[in-house]
Amino acid sequence: MRPSGRKPDELRPIRFTCHYTKHAEGSVLVEFGDTRVLCTASVDERVPPFLRGQNQGWVTAEYGMLPRATHERTHREASRGRQQGRTLEIQRLIGRALRAAVDLKALGERTIIVDCDVLQADGGTRTAAITGGFVALALAVEKLLQEGRIHKNPLHGQIASVSVGIYRGVPVLDLDYVEDCEAETDMNVVKNDGNAYVEIQGTAEGHPFRRDELEAMLDLADKGIAELLEHQRQALTLAGVA
Amino acid sequence: MRPSGRKPDELRPIRFTCHYTKHAEGSVLVEFGDTRVLCTASVDERVPPFLRGQNQGWVTAEYGMLPRATHERTHREASRGRQQGRTLEIQRLIGRALRAAVDLKALGERTIIVDCDVLQADGGTRTAAITGGFVALALAVEKLLQEGRIHKNPLHGQIASVSVGIYRGVPVLDLDYVEDCEAETDMNVVKNDGNAYVEIQGTAEGHPFRRDELEAMLDLADKGIAELLEHQRQALTLAGVA
Amino acid sequence: MRPSGRKPDELRPIRFTCHYTKHAEGSVLVEFGDTRVLCTASVDERVPPFLRGQNQGWVTAEYGMLPRATHERTHREASRGRQQGRTLEIQRLIGRALRAAVDLKALGERTIIVDCDVLQADGGTRTAAITGGFVALALAVEKLLQEGRIHKNPLHGQIASVSVGIYRGVPVLDLDYVEDCEAETDMNVVKNDGNAYVEIQGTAEGHPFRRDELEAMLDLADKGIAELLEHQRQALTLAGVA
Amino acid sequence: MRPSGRKPDELRPIRFTCHYTKHAEGSVLVEFGDTRVLCTASVDERVPPFLRGQNQGWVTAEYGMLPRATHERTHREASRGRQQGRTLEIQRLIGRALRAAVDLKALGERTIIVDCDVLQADGGTRTAAITGGFVALALAVEKLLQEGRIHKNPLHGQIASVSVGIYRGVPVLDLDYVEDCEAETDMNVVKNDGNAYVEIQGTAEGHPFRRDELEAMLDLADKGIAELLEHQRQALTLAGVA
Amino acid sequence: MRPSGRKPDELRPIRFTCHYTKHAEGSVLVEFGDTRVLCTASVDERVPPFLRGQNQGWVTAEYGMLPRATHERTHREASRGRQQGRTLEIQRLIGRALRAAVDLKALGERTIIVDCDVLQADGGTRTAAITGGFVALALAVEKLLQEGRIHKNPLHGQIASVSVGIYRGVPVLDLDYVEDCEAETDMNVVKNDGNAYVEIQGTAEGHPFRRDELEAMLDLADKGIAELLEHQRQALTLAGVA
Amino acid sequence: MRPSGRKPDELRPIRFTCHYTKHAEGSVLVEFGDTRVLCTASVDERVPPFLRGQNQGWVTAEYGMLPRATHERTHREASRGRQQGRTLEIQRLIGRALRAAVDLKALGERTIIVDCDVLQADGGTRTAAITGGFVALALAVEKLLQEGRIHKNPLHGQIASVSVGIYRGVPVLDLDYVEDCEAETDMNVVKNDGNAYVEIQGTAEGHPFRRDELEAMLDLADKGIAELLEHQRQALTLAGVA
Repeated sequence: MRPSGRKPDELRPIRFTCHYTKHAEGSVLVEFGDTRVLCTASVDERVPPFLRGQNQGWVTAEYGMLPRATHERTHREASRGRQQGRTLEIQRLIGRALRAAVDLKALGERTIIVDCDVLQADGGTRTAAITGGFVALALAVEKLLQEGRIHKNPLHGQIASVSVGIYRGVPVLDLDYVEDCEAETDMNVVKNDGNAYVEIQGTAEGHPFRRDELEAMLDLADKGIAELLEHQRQALTLAGVA
Repeated sequence: MRPSGRKPDELRPIRFTCHYTKHAEGSVLVEFGDTRVLCTASVDERVPPFLRGQNQGWVTAEYGMLPRATHERTHREASRGRQQGRTLEIQRLIGRALRAAVDLKALGERTIIVDCDVLQADGGTRTAAITGGFVALALAVEKLLQEGRIHKNPLHGQIASVSVGIYRGVPVLDLDYVEDCEAETDMNVVKNDGNAYVEIQGTAEGHPFRRDELEAMLDLADKGIAELLEHQRQALTLAGVA
Repeated sequence: MRPSGRKPDELRPIRFTCHYTKHAEGSVLVEFGDTRVLCTASVDERVPPFLRGQNQGWVTAEYGMLPRATHERTHREASRGRQQGRTLEIQRLIGRALRAAVDLKALGERTIIVDCDVLQADGGTRTAAITGGFVALALAVEKLLQEGRIHKNPLHGQIASVSVGIYRGVPVLDLDYVEDCEAETDMNVVKNDGNAYVEIQGTAEGHPFRRDELEAMLDLADKGIAELLEHQRQALTLAGVA
Repeated sequence: MRPSGRKPDELRPIRFTCHYTKHAEGSVLVEFGDTRVLCTASVDERVPPFLRGQNQGWVTAEYGMLPRATHERTHREASRGRQQGRTLEIQRLIGRALRAAVDLKALGERTIIVDCDVLQADGGTRTAAITGGFVALALAVEKLLQEGRIHKNPLHGQIASVSVGIYRGVPVLDLDYVEDCEAETDMNVVKNDGNAYVEIQGTAEGHPFRRDELEAMLDLADKGIAELLEHQRQALTLAGVA
Repeated sequence: MRPSGRKPDELRPIRFTCHYTKHAEGSVLVEFGDTRVLCTASVDERVPPFLRGQNQGWVTAEYGMLPRATHERTHREASRGRQQGRTLEIQRLIGRALRAAVDLKALGERTIIVDCDVLQADGGTRTAAITGGFVALALAVEKLLQEGRIHKNPLHGQIASVSVGIYRGVPVLDLDYVEDCEAETDMNVVKNDGNAYVEIQGTAEGHPFRRDELEAMLDLADKGIAELLEHQRQALTLAGVA
Repeated sequence: MRPSGRKPDELRPIRFTCHYTKHAEGSVLVEFGDTRVLCTASVDERVPPFLRGQNQGWVTAEYGMLPRATHERTHREASRGRQQGRTLEIQRLIGRALRAAVDLKALGERTIIVDCDVLQADGGTRTAAITGGFVALALAVEKLLQEGRIHKNPLHGQIASVSVGIYRGVPVLDLDYVEDCEAETDMNVVKNDGNAYVEIQGTAEGHPFRRDELEAMLDLADKGIAELLEHQRQALTLAGVA
């Protein structure tokens, strides 16, 4: 039924390539099928003005899309002179989601900036960015620990995200671009590894959804995120993070 | 238990002052307690470039906050030279929400712009803006019908919105500013008058929420929105819209 | 002769609603007929960089117009990314006018920002903004005095403003929108309560004006401003400012 | 009494160097003492969007100041990314002033843009810009006539401008920078050659001014502008414009 | 002598991964050692306004650097709201260089936009971008030919680029980041496959260079570019372009 | 053969008018034929943030073109809100070129900003700006020495620049606008008075150039720059700089 031949509750192939670039404290190329996002975590030994002198750190995110990551080329935001509302909305979401896993006091007075740049888009870029962003963040934190710059791990859990939706009347997990264009309803769910919700953003594109449809989508998201959390653990273990 | 003395499932006093300004095709001052938003709906006999020649209309929204609508004065976005991410996010939400009630074909090749300007903020400005924005939109549509510029009502339902959250461990309806600052979880829900969800945006500020907490918040939202839809009907009837 | 039926030297109905919003140190809704401007005065315990360490305060103003305050909707300056020349010109005028009543040394090292936002425009928004802005400023100063943050009243007088013009060959006072569109000459006059001029801005829209026409307009402005100063005193007395 | 040794009613040496640059349809370097402004008038065979198809032309102005035209270097507006309020205010004034001499119908569907760039500033740059801008405009119009692109002279008069003020209690004409810094009141007056006022902008910098002071300043402006109009006529005659 | 152990006239390992992304008409990941640039060529069936109706096409380029492509994270230009001078300079260079290989008439009325985004920077990003940009362009042209959208190959040659410099007194080829930081002189050379120069940009960072040093650098560039042209031919042959 | 009747190796008439404006520490109007650039050097007793506390100074440049310096009026960059890539590229070049003559340590912790504003353009504005910019810089340095603000001359040489190109198959020196439009190749060369190259920027506009053409152009540049350096020395001697 799905264009990709996947079952309704089946994720796309998930891949993490840790240490994809060499300069960042943490970096990973995350792939959800053909969606590819390069996530880097950079440590800055300063905090934003509103946090100065408060003895805590900060985690923030920025999101970008290469102009030809998409089917049709989109304008380069840098040359347009402003980030679109969609971009700002996504990077605010990524930042909030990642902070939900961090003890900012334990991080100390420093900022970790997670850059998520979409090299190729095929639906679900924001959920891939959150899921990969967490891995980049964990790699950077590991580096800070190894270098003795922090002594206690400020991460108190994992964060992962997936999209769910109603496609041709059927609730499905992890929509690709073709499904996304046609979906009646689209919902992005972010959870931690304690089975709790960090963020839910559901939008009725075509037809408003009933309570039972919402429940069915949440069930799919629960299953998908459990699998993504396991993928993250395997990738981090392979990269030498316990 | 609540600072305002309200019961957990109690809305703030709701008030609509229709025809608050004289130039706009539709205008209303909406109040959710001390939150006051001026909503105007303006008809423009053009459509945005991406819709030209497609024989349909468009509904969009803009959101603004007067600099001293808030406890501390905020910078004027016009003088800063850019709208904040928060502003763009809110006005995109209002626009999507209102379009869910409109048959854009029946509107014809014209745009209705709903401006929501917060005169005084005390929590819940975006939900008040959506709820009041619908009333302004309905007043403008009525005017188009009366003037014979359209012949069929393009509105196929009502749209209203409310916030719910977990405050000191208890699910509560329609948070004011004091509650909002302290809430562990905050969710904005938009529904139509067919008991279906148009948008759900839930954010765990303090602690991620469990599935049962989500269900409790949705129950409160269902009750609150039913009341808001009734308030809208009364205001529109008083303003002479059947 | 005038579209409104007013006599040539007659002001529109003037109304001040003090304490119109609750957060600002001073706030007033001022109405000159159908022109409605919300003026708030906000105290900021800092001064701009060019005044730091000079043991004096500052008073400045910002001006805005809601998009549908006007007959035709105008673009929102925040979304355009820049304030128009007209806006900058008006807010510079308001700031200069209000400073003419203030002993900046007595204010101490703090800034009062007067925001003037036009909710509905029907001609004369800048003169209403100055006249209402003074009331908001006086209310904020009163609050500073009552709270003991300053000990000497830094206001050494009142400031009010009105427009005059030549409409169909006749000098008239306080032009509304219909008159303004058609006026051959338009002049905005700002005075203090010592019968002296703070600012005069006269523009020949249609035909340049002779010296005797200028004199006739100044006579009308003198009369109108005397009445506005009395309106201000009554409003402030009602609001408990001696 | 004046720092320059001038009498209160004495202009600075006035000089017009017509055809100062070779590309513009009209160009002049105007000097009011040490204030030097390069004015060029450029003809564009289009009109702004709001005038298309209305069978009339347009005259507009732009104003700029070289960064080191002033005592202290000022920031280059192009690199700052926005024109200051002062700049916008001045260029709007120049444009309005020059249009008061032009029959826009007779100009035909074309725009004349008058650029006024200050090479050296010593007070009174806006009045020099208006006075020189008129000469550049007249030279460009002469060229259009000679080339047969228009057949009737669209200029129905001359425009000149001067500043007046109260310096150490005495009304003076054409303030230079030293006087301007210290003046209690400053007024810019624009007139045509029919002895009528086109624009009056008076600002009380130090102390609000009485009606009799205003009259004295207007008398000085009348005298100064009469002389400037004569200077313009001589310069244009020398440049071959009848 | 060189930090990398290379001989003075030795290129870094060069690699082209054609078809690196799936949406663009042409795409390649080019690597000069650790410098990695993703180049995509996108076909747009329009031309810029200045070329409309002139029966010819256009080729242009845009350049970007991911924030953490560098040793220290740099600001994201999109969030800063403007592209730096360095970025604009580089993308103008890439566009000019590529156009030198294209018969714009044969391209027809369409634009090819070559986006060069640096995923990892280690010196020489602009020369890698030009060299890889040509490959992406050739792949896109091949696609247009295969789809019958053009009938004659508009490419009349190849374009490649390399940097040369004086490092510790010795002329060297293809500087990496460590050498670049310390080089006294840096020169970027662009040539075609007819042994002619398309662009030369030499800058004395430390000490101005003599004519004989210039000659030595040009000799190295000649050798390096000959090798790069051969690498391009191999990559294109492998990708099925004759 | 050349439109101007000049020989291939002949410069245009060169003129320096030192002390052209009175406020700047150094100022000169430089003319290369009809190309006229006003160069001012301003001393600022601060350094940019990246140099603070490093016990050295800085020299930087800004470049602008008056809107009607050109054949067709160009847009004013200040009103466009951004400097074009071409402008940024030129001012970066001027700054680098001038710094090659300065011992930044000897300058002390201060910045000299060289503003180069084109009053009239007729080809070669960037080379005139560099050549005149050096004179303005030398005048400012002389002033600092005379006022005892520095004790050792931080200039260790002279800097001049000229353009060369291939025009109708013949290498020519110092191209004017007519030649520039038609030239097949255009190269800007910057040298010091020690016969060494500071910057070379060659661009094949029409046809890529061979090595022997490059050599011929460099020979012409050598000759032209030697003459320009002599012109500079004469101008500075006349202005009282030894």
